[in-house]
Amino acid sequence: MKFKLPKKSMHKGPNFIREVFERGAGIPGFISFGIGNPASEAIPVKEIQDAFDEIVHTNPIEILQYGPMQGDAHLAELTRRRLINVRHMPAEGQSILISIGAGQDLGLVPRTICEDGDEVYMDAYTFTSGINAVRNCGAVPVGIAMDEKGMIPEALEKAAKSGKGKYIYLIPNFQNPTGITMPLERRRAIYDIARTYDLLIYEDDPYGEIRFTDEVVPTFKSMDEDNRVIYAGSYSKTVSAGLRVGFLYGPEEIIGAIQMVKNNCDGQMPLVTQRVVAHLLDTIDYDEQIKKVARVYKEKCDLMLDTFKKYGSSKVRFTTPTGGMFVWMTMPDGVDCDAFFETCMEHKVGIVKGAAFAADGIPAGQSFRLSFTFPSKEQIVEGMKIVGALTKEVCGD
Amino acid sequence: MKFKLPKKSMHKGPNFIREVFERGAGIPGFISFGIGNPASEAIPVKEIQDAFDEIVHTNPIEILQYGPMQGDAHLAELTRRRLINVRHMPAEGQSILISIGAGQDLGLVPRTICEDGDEVYMDAYTFTSGINAVRNCGAVPVGIAMDEKGMIPEALEKAAKSGKGKYIYLIPNFQNPTGITMPLERRRAIYDIARTYDLLIYEDDPYGEIRFTDEVVPTFKSMDEDNRVIYAGSYSKTVSAGLRVGFLYGPEEIIGAIQMVKNNCDGQMPLVTQRVVAHLLDTIDYDEQIKKVARVYKEKCDLMLDTFKKYGSSKVRFTTPTGGMFVWMTMPDGVDCDAFFETCMEHKVGIVKGAAFAADGIPAGQSFRLSFTFPSKEQIVEGMKIVGALTKEVCGD
Repeated sequence: MKFKLPKKSMHKGPNFIREVFERGAGIPGFISFGIGNPASEAIPVKEIQDAFDEIVHTNPIEILQYGPMQGDAHLAELTRRRLINVRHMPAEGQSILISIGAGQDLGLVPRTICEDGDEVYMDAYTFTSGINAVRNCGAVPVGIAMDEKGMIPEALEKAAKSGKGKYIYLIPNFQNPTGITMPLERRRAIYDIARTYDLLIYEDDPYGEIRFTDEVVPTFKSMDEDNRVIYAGSYSKTVSAGLRVGFLYGPEEIIGAIQMVKNNCDGQMPLVTQRVVAHLLDTIDYDEQIKKVARVYKEKCDLMLDTFKKYGSSKVRFTTPTGGMFVWMTMPDGVDCDAFFETCMEHKVGIVKGAAFAADGIPAGQSFRLSFTFPSKEQIVEGMKIVGALTKEVCGD
Repeated sequence: MKFKLPKKSMHKGPNFIREVFERGAGIPGFISFGIGNPASEAIPVKEIQDAFDEIVHTNPIEILQYGPMQGDAHLAELTRRRLINVRHMPAEGQSILISIGAGQDLGLVPRTICEDGDEVYMDAYTFTSGINAVRNCGAVPVGIAMDEKGMIPEALEKAAKSGKGKYIYLIPNFQNPTGITMPLERRRAIYDIARTYDLLIYEDDPYGEIRFTDEVVPTFKSMDEDNRVIYAGSYSKTVSAGLRVGFLYGPEEIIGAIQMVKNNCDGQMPLVTQRVVAHLLDTIDYDEQIKKVARVYKEKCDLMLDTFKKYGSSKVRFTTPTGGMFVWMTMPDGVDCDAFFETCMEHKVGIVKGAAFAADGIPAGQSFRLSFTFPSKEQIVEGMKIVGALTKEVCGD
């Protein structure tokens, strides 16, 4: 039969993250800085196993039948309380929605809020699925120029003048892919523009609590006087990514609409995995668990940067993240990034080209992302020696 | 702030199924024929617990880290093989997609295939989320008149002449809400119209194997000469609804596009629940499990209809399902269905008004749906005595 898919559902280009994964999978001794997996050694395995044992063997019918469409009420309440009490977010006029990881939210928000041709403003380089989900919903992911503090307010304002914008998508803490944390005054400037042009803000904060320092920059949601911020969080990085438990917290009316769209279009979520997370929150010291994750990540991050400083080209600029999972390195103009990526692959090291993260209208650039969380420390040292030496070859000493 | 949600994301009316659930939840002794839950006694609880124990304690990191975006490859292969070998579906040119229940497919198909204003043809009365998901995607769920054999080909053809149709949504076996199974010659006629107007067919078959008789009507997919059928199935009714494992099987190009949209917009699925289902398929006699479910359902269905025949009004017409979960009863014209529903609630029995299942352009009608799977046999007898007596009161003897 002849059948034409809509333009929004057509593939827009290669997935470089998957490419690294798939090509690396067949290579013995391959070291991947491409995959954004959490550190396995920071997952509370025993506690999760205990939680499964308890939940699967206590009233099993409850988790094996259809459960509540909104998800586990206890988990929602524990999450909501932490957002209010620990993260200082407003309590009034807000609703919470439990999702299958924060990944499910990436589609739910534009699907519910956007119509064909609406614009979504986002960092020039941002999370690949954050870009692609907007495209797949028929909206336009407009890349906004960044500097070392993140999105540039003047560039945002220029784009917002089109009047076609619906929301700004931001990862303000330890941004993916750059590792940048947006300072407070920059957040205030972005919020003011959202106010002027009546835009919502979708604050994606999956690693927000995984900090390497004591400095806490307030979230947009905690400063949300107008109730225009939809906050997304996740237990993927603090507990386990495989359990797929995330959430949205924001204006009642909007979360209500998203919940309805989710009920109709996505159906129910597994209850057992939600119960496991709730059981953990009830039984472990969650703050201590987050600190443990941060300690593990910081050590690996330091090791990555220290090794690069020792072996890499001084011509390469890089970010020094204060949390999260990613370092962003930028090579001088004129260096062939595609060729550099291939050379790394030949040397059995996976990196992700900046082009993977480029929103609409943004050039591929001279940068690449490195994730320091999943590889072992030995792999980090070995791999960064190789990456470092290769940058010297192509960028000069 | 002032913010207007798109029309597609606005609530279209009450959810009568949820209403029955929520109002009934607070009433002691309430008997619900409203909820479409499987029979708890047919869930292989012990085997599922064993599967969890095995999977959670063997290589736990695998299920606690991000897993394959496409889901568990072994589960996909077991499912694919069954569709080809047992259900006689074509192998060539097809792909399989694992989903979070067949519920997730209800949104994925229109989101990927439809653009704003496209028409989707469906039974006049059909699964509520099947209707709402199409609405939420900005497409138009066009209800097509039915008779005792299901969708009427001539009515479909009349609608299809608009040229705006993208696909036909059908539940050919033991339809929800009517319990009707579409005979072979009717399937052929519908398929011919799909061919003439170049429409895809979305065959939703969650209860297809739960048959009360030996008669097997071939699926659309098994007769799919043009490769225009997307088949959706689920392990919710044969194993456990709470595990949320379903699948799509259909044309490579279309499943590929749906998979990409799913990857971008929905993210990953929990792996543990998929592994539990795969472990069950590997270790239990799945055919015997399906037969067990069918035996339990048939017994309850017979009990429901026998009790109604004994105590109900002869003026009420009802379907006699040969499988699945639902009976559809139709009262004479002029009876006030809303008032009848309220009277049932007052007598502590929940039914679902036909209006819950009406696609766009279809009147509320004189019917109601009864689900016979979840209540106990005692509840079925007691509840159907009450429903029966009430029909006599409002419809006459």
